Amino acid sequence: MNFCSNCGARVVARIPDGDHRERWVCPSCGTIHYQNPRLVVGAIPEGEDRILLCKRGIEPRYGKWTLPAGFMENGETVAQAAQRETHEEALAHIEIIDMFSVFSVPHVDQVHVFYRARLGAPEFGTTPESIEVALFAEHEIPWDEIAFRTVSTTLRHYFEDRARGTYRVHWGAITPPAPR
Amino acid sequence: MNFCSNCGARVVARIPDGDHRERWVCPSCGTIHYQNPRLVVGAIPEGEDRILLCKRGIEPRYGKWTLPAGFMENGETVAQAAQRETHEEALAHIEIIDMFSVFSVPHVDQVHVFYRARLGAPEFGTTPESIEVALFAEHEIPWDEIAFRTVSTTLRHYFEDRARGTYRVHWGAITPPAPR
Repeated sequence: MNFCSNCGARVVARIPDGDHRERWVCPSCGTIHYQNPRLVVGAIPEGEDRILLCKRGIEPRYGKWTLPAGFMENGETVAQAAQRETHEEALAHIEIIDMFSVFSVPHVDQVHVFYRARLGAPEFGTTPESIEVALFAEHEIPWDEIAFRTVSTTLRHYFEDRARGTYRVHWGAITPPAPR
Repeated sequence: MNFCSNCGARVVARIPDGDHRERWVCPSCGTIHYQNPRLVVGAIPEGEDRILLCKRGIEPRYGKWTLPAGFMENGETVAQAAQRETHEEALAHIEIIDMFSVFSVPHVDQVHVFYRARLGAPEFGTTPESIEVALFAEHEIPWDEIAFRTVSTTLRHYFEDRARGTYRVHWGAITPPAPR
């Protein structure tokens, strides 16, 4: 951040009175520009015993497989974000079943939320964001080609819960990969 | 938003190519300034059979009671945010038990998350944000003086689950109050 989005003056980094963290502050109009984590929201769309995955047509992780998910927008609920992203990425309409996972990814300032969801019909297709969209049985999941660790972790918990016959909400943190 | 935080030029509202929503876009350097919901994270601190509430010492809702909660910061996990906010607002140290509620508040672009938590010791105190901090048994909860609907909804579910002897994660949306 270089300039104040309110008045256009150059911002400075300092700890505001009564605060405990450095913020971008405008010395001209006094606006404090807080920066906060963003929510990435998606779904595990179930089509009978298979689940829907998308092959990414955009960076990062072009060509890797993911659950449909994306940044939550202002003015919507978390569940609506999951439905919207599933339609934008896979042209699929889903019915939300239940929240399934909430993973913090603090090194990129994100929180990822996934819902279990029912595919209304086996209708889906490619989009500008997905070069391939397909249903996978558990033994067909391309584990080595999953785009994000929140997705592979969510899928692992999902198949464990499904085998056990009972689902719960899983939460935790995904830490940075160890340096090589 | 009036000015580009990157280059200081005046921004314009338009739908970027490949997007479907109006964004603040900089015609000079091309930066798209996305705006996304913020996470408000807190705890239900349990001290034996009582729970800790804070009387707000700041606006909004000065003088009303709330669970300790506040905006999640970059670089932390959701659970760490709940612990930090509980210490900042009530000088209390908590141990996280489990995620308990996730409520979207789309009309203010927020998502509120609460964890059940154990008070390590019955130690707490007032802070610049809380003019009173106290433990309440269920029949002592000041239901008519709760600051936010996500808090009263969370507390209602909490005491229902506790009476039933089994907790689950509750989620949903809080819609704007009906106009009078």
